[in-house]
Amino acid sequence: MTLTHVPAPTNTRLDRLLAPTSIAVVGASASSGKLGSVMLDAITRGSDGSVSAYGVNPKSSGDDGLFGSLRDAADTHGTPIDLAVLCIPASATPAALRDAADSGVGAALICSGGFAEAGPDGIALQNELAQIVADTGIRLLGPNTSGFFRPGSTTVSFVPTVEHITTGTVAVVAASGGMNHALSFLLSEHGVGVGLGVGLGNSVDVTNVDVLDYLRDDPSITAIALHVESVDDGRALLAAVRNITTHKPVVAIVVGRSDVSAFSESHTGALATSWKTTRALLAEAGAVVVDTEQQLVDALAVLSHTRLPASAAPGVGLVTAQAGPALMILDELLAQDVQVPTLTEATQAGLSELLPPLTFQANPVDTGRPGASFGAVLSTTAADAAIDALAVYALAEPDALDLADAVRASGVHTRVPVVLGIGGPGEAVGKTGAAAAALGVPVLPSPTALATGVGALVHDARSRFLRTTDTAPTAPTVAPAIALPADEATAKDLLDALGIGTPPRRVCADRPAAHQALAELPLPVAVKILDSAVLHKTEIGGVHLGIRSADELDVALDALDAINAPAYLVESMAPSGVDLFLGARRDPVFGPIVVAGLGGTAAEAIGDVAIRSADVTRTAAAAMLDDLQCAPLLDGWRGGPVLRRDEFAHLAVTVARYLADHPAISDIEINPLRLTPTGLTALDAVIVPTPARGNAVEGEKP
Amino acid sequence: MTLTHVPAPTNTRLDRLLAPTSIAVVGASASSGKLGSVMLDAITRGSDGSVSAYGVNPKSSGDDGLFGSLRDAADTHGTPIDLAVLCIPASATPAALRDAADSGVGAALICSGGFAEAGPDGIALQNELAQIVADTGIRLLGPNTSGFFRPGSTTVSFVPTVEHITTGTVAVVAASGGMNHALSFLLSEHGVGVGLGVGLGNSVDVTNVDVLDYLRDDPSITAIALHVESVDDGRALLAAVRNITTHKPVVAIVVGRSDVSAFSESHTGALATSWKTTRALLAEAGAVVVDTEQQLVDALAVLSHTRLPASAAPGVGLVTAQAGPALMILDELLAQDVQVPTLTEATQAGLSELLPPLTFQANPVDTGRPGASFGAVLSTTAADAAIDALAVYALAEPDALDLADAVRASGVHTRVPVVLGIGGPGEAVGKTGAAAAALGVPVLPSPTALATGVGALVHDARSRFLRTTDTAPTAPTVAPAIALPADEATAKDLLDALGIGTPPRRVCADRPAAHQALAELPLPVAVKILDSAVLHKTEIGGVHLGIRSADELDVALDALDAINAPAYLVESMAPSGVDLFLGARRDPVFGPIVVAGLGGTAAEAIGDVAIRSADVTRTAAAAMLDDLQCAPLLDGWRGGPVLRRDEFAHLAVTVARYLADHPAISDIEINPLRLTPTGLTALDAVIVPTPARGNAVEGEKP
Repeated sequence: MTLTHVPAPTNTRLDRLLAPTSIAVVGASASSGKLGSVMLDAITRGSDGSVSAYGVNPKSSGDDGLFGSLRDAADTHGTPIDLAVLCIPASATPAALRDAADSGVGAALICSGGFAEAGPDGIALQNELAQIVADTGIRLLGPNTSGFFRPGSTTVSFVPTVEHITTGTVAVVAASGGMNHALSFLLSEHGVGVGLGVGLGNSVDVTNVDVLDYLRDDPSITAIALHVESVDDGRALLAAVRNITTHKPVVAIVVGRSDVSAFSESHTGALATSWKTTRALLAEAGAVVVDTEQQLVDALAVLSHTRLPASAAPGVGLVTAQAGPALMILDELLAQDVQVPTLTEATQAGLSELLPPLTFQANPVDTGRPGASFGAVLSTTAADAAIDALAVYALAEPDALDLADAVRASGVHTRVPVVLGIGGPGEAVGKTGAAAAALGVPVLPSPTALATGVGALVHDARSRFLRTTDTAPTAPTVAPAIALPADEATAKDLLDALGIGTPPRRVCADRPAAHQALAELPLPVAVKILDSAVLHKTEIGGVHLGIRSADELDVALDALDAINAPAYLVESMAPSGVDLFLGARRDPVFGPIVVAGLGGTAAEAIGDVAIRSADVTRTAAAAMLDDLQCAPLLDGWRGGPVLRRDEFAHLAVTVARYLADHPAISDIEINPLRLTPTGLTALDAVIVPTPARGNAVEGEKP
Repeated sequence: MTLTHVPAPTNTRLDRLLAPTSIAVVGASASSGKLGSVMLDAITRGSDGSVSAYGVNPKSSGDDGLFGSLRDAADTHGTPIDLAVLCIPASATPAALRDAADSGVGAALICSGGFAEAGPDGIALQNELAQIVADTGIRLLGPNTSGFFRPGSTTVSFVPTVEHITTGTVAVVAASGGMNHALSFLLSEHGVGVGLGVGLGNSVDVTNVDVLDYLRDDPSITAIALHVESVDDGRALLAAVRNITTHKPVVAIVVGRSDVSAFSESHTGALATSWKTTRALLAEAGAVVVDTEQQLVDALAVLSHTRLPASAAPGVGLVTAQAGPALMILDELLAQDVQVPTLTEATQAGLSELLPPLTFQANPVDTGRPGASFGAVLSTTAADAAIDALAVYALAEPDALDLADAVRASGVHTRVPVVLGIGGPGEAVGKTGAAAAALGVPVLPSPTALATGVGALVHDARSRFLRTTDTAPTAPTVAPAIALPADEATAKDLLDALGIGTPPRRVCADRPAAHQALAELPLPVAVKILDSAVLHKTEIGGVHLGIRSADELDVALDALDAINAPAYLVESMAPSGVDLFLGARRDPVFGPIVVAGLGGTAAEAIGDVAIRSADVTRTAAAAMLDDLQCAPLLDGWRGGPVLRRDEFAHLAVTVARYLADHPAISDIEINPLRLTPTGLTALDAVIVPTPARGNAVEGEKP
C-alpha cells in the first residue's frame, strides 16, 4: 500500500475537518431512521449551501442517490472529498478510514463507540485507527463523539435540535459529544451564540490542543469554552492555552473534583487527571477556570464581547439602582478577589451632585432609585482613575430607566468595558439585552451572574499580566549538579548555592565534632541523624530539638547512636514563625511543577496547596500563595511575620527551574520552610532522585 | 391618646398585612408619576378583585377619587382598612402610622428610606415607629422596602413589572425589597412560580421570623426562599426555621462572605452577622443553604414539587442518555456528599437485558443512546433497594426519546421522586418541562443544575433526620458548677466529671510534690504553670514537655519559678495523634454554640471549623466534623487513629449543654483535644468566666 497524498500543513488539514466544503457519509442508507441517514439528513439540512453532501454505501444500486465509494463521490464533486463521516460499525472503521485516506479525503469523523472505552478488543481497534492516521496523515475526529457544528453553516451531528443553536462567536471545545451539545445549547439559550461546537470523543488524533491552535486564527471565533475530562499531553495543552489566550479568552471547566475514575474510564478509556493541578495550571496558562456550566455561560457572555488589557488588579466600579442586589454583587466580587476601589473625593463630590443625599457613593454607587441622572452617574464613576470597568445592576423598570439607553447616551461603554445585570420579566430583560448587545455591552440575569461575568473579565486580564510580566529577574544562579542520593546537609548546601537561606550548621562525624559545633553555633541547636537513606527522620527518633548544654547534647547523641546514625547534623534553631512547605515535583501529565502551602499534614489533607508550572513567572509565583485559604497566616496573623512575596517568588522559581534542568532529580521538598521576622529559612530539605529506569518517572511520557 | 383596638393573635394580624382585602395608599395623588400614584395604580392593576384599593390624601378635594383620611376610606369600605401603604416622606410617617392604628388599620407598609440606615436622625425616626408599634399593636412592614406581592391576586409594590411574575407556590422572604424582586423574577423566568414575595427592609416590626411562622400555615405555599443579610434574634430565627421545615422546605442564601459591612450598614443600618455561623446554624435548623441565586432557583425547582422522607443518606440513581453530562452530574453529586450507591447485581442483571453491552450499568446507568427501553431502565433502577430518588439527564432528541412520556408511562415518579435534566433548545425543553410539571416532576436545564436540585432534595431529607433522630442518649451527667476563675486543673476536673477523658496528673504545690508526681505518673510528663490568670501558657514559657528524669524536671521547675508559677501541674503526656479543638461559646446573635476543628492556628485562619447550636442532637454532632475540609485526617490518615463519631458527639453535646446551663461561663475551650488510638483526650482546657456586667456577653441581647 502506498500513501496517496502528502500531508498538508496542520491548519489546512483541520480546515478540511472543521470547515469542509464537501462531506460524504459512509454508511448512508436509503432507509431513513438509521444513523447514516440521520447524519446525512442533518448535514444536508444544517448547511447553508457552502457544503456539498454525499451519501456513500458500497451496496448502493445507484438508483437511491447514494454513491458506491468515496472515489465515485469525489469524481462527481470534481475534487477529493474534504470530510468522510463513518457511520458504520466499529469493527469496519479501520478499513473505511484507510479507504478514505487512499481516496484523498482530508479528514474523517467516527461517531460510533466500542473503542478504548470498551476493553481490550476496542483498544486494539483504536490502535489500528491511530496507525492509519500516522501512516496516511488523514485527520480523525473521534471515535465516540456526536460530531461538530458551525451553527448556520455546517452541521455534522446526529442530534437534530442542533439547528436551533444561535449563531455567534463562541467556540465550544468539549471532551465529549454530549457536553459539546449541552454547553452549546446552554450558551445559545442564554443569548450567547455559538460559532463552532466540537466534541472530541476518544481523541485518537485530533485533540483539544489541535482545535485550540486552529481556533487562534479562525476569525469567526472571539472566545473559547473548554471542557476538560482528562489530559493527555499536559505541556502541549498549556502551550496551546498560553498561545491562544494571547489573542482570545478561554473559559475552562474541568471534571474530576470527586473520584469519578471508575465511570470516567468506562466513558473514554482515560483516567481523570488531577483536578486541582489541571485547574491551577490552566489558570496560570491564561484560562478563566469556572466551577459550573452556568458560570461558564456567564463568563463567556462577557468575554465573547469584551476584554480588559493585561493588568495586575483592574478596578471595578459597581453602580446599582437597588441596594440589596448591590450587596450580593459586592460580596461576590470581593470573594473573587476583585478590586472595588473607593472612589476619589473628587468623583464622590461629582456623584453627590447627581444623587440624593444619604445614598452610598464611595463604590458601590447606589442610586437609591433609578432616575434621569443614571447615565451621568455611570460616566462620572467610570472617569475615576481607579476604575477600569463598570458593573451595573438594576431591576427592569421601563418607566423609570432604560438601562441600555442610559449607557448609549452616556457613551461610557466606549471608554471602559461595561457589564449590565438586569432582573425582571423575560420580555423587558430581552429588550434591554438586545439594545445593549447592539452596543457590544453584555447583559447578565442575576446579581451573582453579573459578579461572575465581571470576575471573568478581571481574571482574564490578571492572568495575562501575571504570565507576561516579570519582576526584575535576577541573574540566573549557576548551581552545581549534586551527587545523589543527597543527605540533608548536601541538600541544604545546594539551597545555599541557589541563594535560599538555611540555618548555620555543622556536619559532625563524631561526638567531639558535635560538641565543638555546640560551642560554636548560636543556641539552641537541633541535632539530627544525617543519612541519605532516611527520609522521615522524626518518625524514627532522629531529630532532637532545643539543645543548649553538653549534657543535653550527649542524651541526644546517645539516642542517635541507638538508631545507628552514620553522622550527626548539628544546626542552630530558627526563631519561631509560620511553617510552610515548598516543593518542586514532576507531574506525570504536566511535567515539572512547583507546589506550596502550609507545613504539616493539615494543608495536604485539606488540599489547601498552590500549584504552578516550572515555567511560572516571578510575578505569578509572588501571587501564588494568595490562592491559599491560609493566606491570612502569611500577612502578620496575630502579630506574626509578614511574607515578602518577592522573596518567596525567588525561592519558588529557583527550585522549579533547578528541577526542570536536572532530570536526575524527581522531587525537591523544603518542609518546613519557616517564615520568620527576618525572612524565609529552609529547616529541612529532601532531594529525591529520579528512579533509575531511563530517568523517567513512572507514568511520565518520555 | 388611647389604644383603639386590642391586638389580635399574630397570625390574624399578619393576614391583614399579607392577605389584605382592603388597602389604602396614604399619600396617593391625582398627578400620575408620583410614588403614591404609582403604588395605587400597581395595587389596582395587580389585584384580582379580592382587594379593594383606596387613595388617601388629606389635601384631597374629594373630586379626585381620593379620600381625605383612612377613616373616610374605612367608612366607604364598611370595615376598617386592613393595610395602609404610607407613601409619604420619612419625617411624616410616625404621625401617619399612629393615625392608621387609631383608625383601626391592621397593618402598614412604609417604602421610603431615611431611617436607621441614614444616621442619627433616621434612627430616632425609626425608634418612633417602633414605639408606635409597641403602643398600638399595628403590624409594620419596612420601612425601606419596595413591598410585597402575591402574583395573580395582590400586588403591593411600585415595581411595575411584578405583574409578569408567574403564579406558583414558592414564597420569597428577602431582607431587601430589591432582592425580593430579583429572586422572584429569577424563579419566575426559570419556570418556578411565586406565591408570595416579601421584602423586609429595616424590619422595625415584621421580621423574617414572623413571616416564616405565618407561612407554615399558608396552604398556597409549598417551599420558601429565604434571603438573609443580617440576623437580629438568632434563636428566634432558628426556632422558626426548625418549625417550618418540619412542614415545608426552606432554601436559604446568606450575604456576607466578604467584608461588606461598610456598605451593608449604609443599606439597612445593621451589621452583617457572621456568615459562617449563620449558614451552619440555618443548615442545622433544617434549611438547605446555597451559595448563589441560581442554586436557590435550582433547589426550589425541585423542593417546591417534592420532598424525601427524613433519611441519613438517601441513595440517588443517576440515569443518563449521554456519558459526558453523566460525568459532570456524578462529579457534582459526589462533591455534595450525595450517595450514588452501586446497584445490586440483580438490578444490574435486569439493566443488562434492557441496554446494549458495554454501557455502564452500576450507577450511573448510562444508556449510551436513548431508546425505547428508557422508561424500563428508570423503573428497574428505581426498584433497587438502595435507591430513594432518581436523577435523569438527556439531550432533547424529540425523535429518539420523549423524556416526560417515558417517565409517565413507566410510572416511576409515583414510587420515588424523579428529577429531570434536559439540554436543548428552549422550545423542546419547555415542552418536556410542561409535560413533566403536569406529572409533578421538576426539570432542570443543565447537568450541574440537576445535581444542585437533587442535592437540595437529599440535604433537606438529611437535615430533618439529623435534627430529629438522636442516638441512644446517655443519662445526663450531673456536673457541679465550678469556682471561677478556674485554672487548668479545675477545668480538667470538670471535664472528668462530665465524662471527658483527660491525662493522669497531679497538682503540685512544691518541688517535692512534683518529684513525687514524676515518680508515680506514666512517663514522659509535661510540667506546666498552674495559674488561672494565665490563658496562654506556652507563650510565656509555662509549658515543658517530654520530661522523663529528675534532672529534666528540675530544669523545667527552675524555668517555671522564674515566671513566678504559683503551683505546678505535672501530667502524663498522651500518645501522639491528631490534635483537634472543641469549644463551647456564646455567640452574640445565636447564643450558645459549639465549634470544632483541627487544633493549631491553621484551621482558624483557613476558617475550616464546624459550628452547631448548643441544642445540637447527638446524631448531628456526630456528623458535624464531616463538614470539615480536614475530615480525611480523622479517618486514619496515613495510618493514624480513626475518630469515633459517637465519642466526639458525646463531648460536643456535653460541653455545649454545660455552657448553656451555666450563664457564669462564657467559653469552654478544649485545645488541643487529641485524637489517639484509644480515643479523645483533652490535653488542655480553658474556662472563661462571663464578664461581670450582669452575666451578659458584650453585644449579646439580654
